Amino acid sequence: MINQLVSKIKKLNAPVVVGLDPMLSYVPEHIVTKALNEYGETLEGAAEAIWQFNKQIVDKTWDLIPAVKPQIAMYEQFGIPGMVAYKKTVDYCKSKGLVVIGDVKRGDIGSTSAAYAVGHLGKVQVGSQKIAGFDEDFATVNPYLGSDGIEPFIKVCKEEKKGIFVLVKTSNPSSGEFQDQLINGKPLYELVGEKVAQWGMEYMGESYSYVGCVVGATYPEMGKVLRKVMPKTYILVPGYGAQGGTADSLRPYFNEDGLGAIVNSSRGIIAAYKQEKYAKFGAENFADASRAAVIDMIEDIRSIF
Amino acid sequence: MINQLVSKIKKLNAPVVVGLDPMLSYVPEHIVTKALNEYGETLEGAAEAIWQFNKQIVDKTWDLIPAVKPQIAMYEQFGIPGMVAYKKTVDYCKSKGLVVIGDVKRGDIGSTSAAYAVGHLGKVQVGSQKIAGFDEDFATVNPYLGSDGIEPFIKVCKEEKKGIFVLVKTSNPSSGEFQDQLINGKPLYELVGEKVAQWGMEYMGESYSYVGCVVGATYPEMGKVLRKVMPKTYILVPGYGAQGGTADSLRPYFNEDGLGAIVNSSRGIIAAYKQEKYAKFGAENFADASRAAVIDMIEDIRSIF
Repeated sequence: MINQLVSKIKKLNAPVVVGLDPMLSYVPEHIVTKALNEYGETLEGAAEAIWQFNKQIVDKTWDLIPAVKPQIAMYEQFGIPGMVAYKKTVDYCKSKGLVVIGDVKRGDIGSTSAAYAVGHLGKVQVGSQKIAGFDEDFATVNPYLGSDGIEPFIKVCKEEKKGIFVLVKTSNPSSGEFQDQLINGKPLYELVGEKVAQWGMEYMGESYSYVGCVVGATYPEMGKVLRKVMPKTYILVPGYGAQGGTADSLRPYFNEDGLGAIVNSSRGIIAAYKQEKYAKFGAENFADASRAAVIDMIEDIRSIF
Repeated sequence: MINQLVSKIKKLNAPVVVGLDPMLSYVPEHIVTKALNEYGETLEGAAEAIWQFNKQIVDKTWDLIPAVKPQIAMYEQFGIPGMVAYKKTVDYCKSKGLVVIGDVKRGDIGSTSAAYAVGHLGKVQVGSQKIAGFDEDFATVNPYLGSDGIEPFIKVCKEEKKGIFVLVKTSNPSSGEFQDQLINGKPLYELVGEKVAQWGMEYMGESYSYVGCVVGATYPEMGKVLRKVMPKTYILVPGYGAQGGTADSLRPYFNEDGLGAIVNSSRGIIAAYKQEKYAKFGAENFADASRAAVIDMIEDIRSIF
């Protein structure tokens, strides 16, 4: 799957991923109204609204981008109907040939971590059948519990040729509270980065590992260091656009080959029609605004090379 | 909710929680067969089997225990039908008056963390309605992303009078890889513990905070230190029984008042009928074996005072 992701990035010359993180407040009025008229003011109604919203954005952007990253929390907030919308989104994106990175940030230990890995990337045994649960291509994973939390994911990745992105340095303001603490003169995120490089050696693709990592666009100096610590690790970079990261700041995340990083934008793309820049499209044509924002983002990122 | 938990623990004189973490391999043959006959070898069939298994265990133990802790990964591995079984389990346990600790180990930032908090502990706005998604009483939360990940949970806890347990020192062998690293001579778990105590001050119950923590039974020396660092924090203690923690090792987790900790056992209770000690019950009466194991566990833990 990492080989497929890299080859799609090269082919499209677009190291970008669209974050499908639909807040109900991003969804245009006409879609919400239709969904709530049909299903009532219920979780089902909300889930239908975000699914229709996603579908139209995917329909207008899938040919430009290698991958999407649905943030499961945005679906989980609507309970079971939300999870159904998440699964529909994953399946639909895969049917369009997109690589799906499930932003699930799961992490536990032993058999519990194995259960998450199986549920999101693998297949569970039921009688004589092996059945996929959510079936994303990649999942994001939290490293706080150590190797016991990561190894079960790597095992499933090997079986299914899938991958993970391990949180190393997150994009938020308070990420330094623990991640930046110095251990023998070296920040924790660097120690985690070294571990990611080590875990990555266990399952290498052609040029990059199936074990990737997450480093926020908001910390380019740290990105520079981490790029060197993990040369074979693909870096998923959130925080571009709405969170303040700019194209200039992204250069350190890439290797000399122009590969090694994939930049995420969520709100900046899916709610583009709300920006002054794309307001001309109007709420009716929100997905066209998203397409225009994707084109601009790709151009912006290409400009750094 | 923390006041309710403490009062139930006192009333039953039982600082224990049963972990409802159903592996399909724990479920007796007759239940699995019946479920798969009805629903086929499908995710629905597996989900029905674990739900029936849970229900019988709850029916035989609810009067002895203050709380249950369903581990969501064990449900999530069965995709959407598994999540439905999780929700049914949560609702059923609440209908029996049990406090439900959702062992979800979620953690993200800002609006994403808020979405998890709303989905598991709060209510989401849909049109003019506010609707609960999963509606557990407590959730476990991962601290790696710092305060930005925790504060949205505390906000929802205040609105809903619910609580969280933040991972501090986990019970697994490799938990030390990051958690034990020394920062200015102090291990990371202690730094996280200090933060938990600080977060806890933001929302205090009568004698303990709505912000609890998780410290594994397998590290009693660290438990002793952390007890002092977080005097007003309830400690959820996994790792008793199957993972090797003994009653002797649990004393340091409690305060002088005999409160301040609640000990979890999962496999040791729900799969008790598979142990030699409880084999006499037979697979047909697996839930009676679980009841016997709960009684033994409570007696074992009372012995330390």
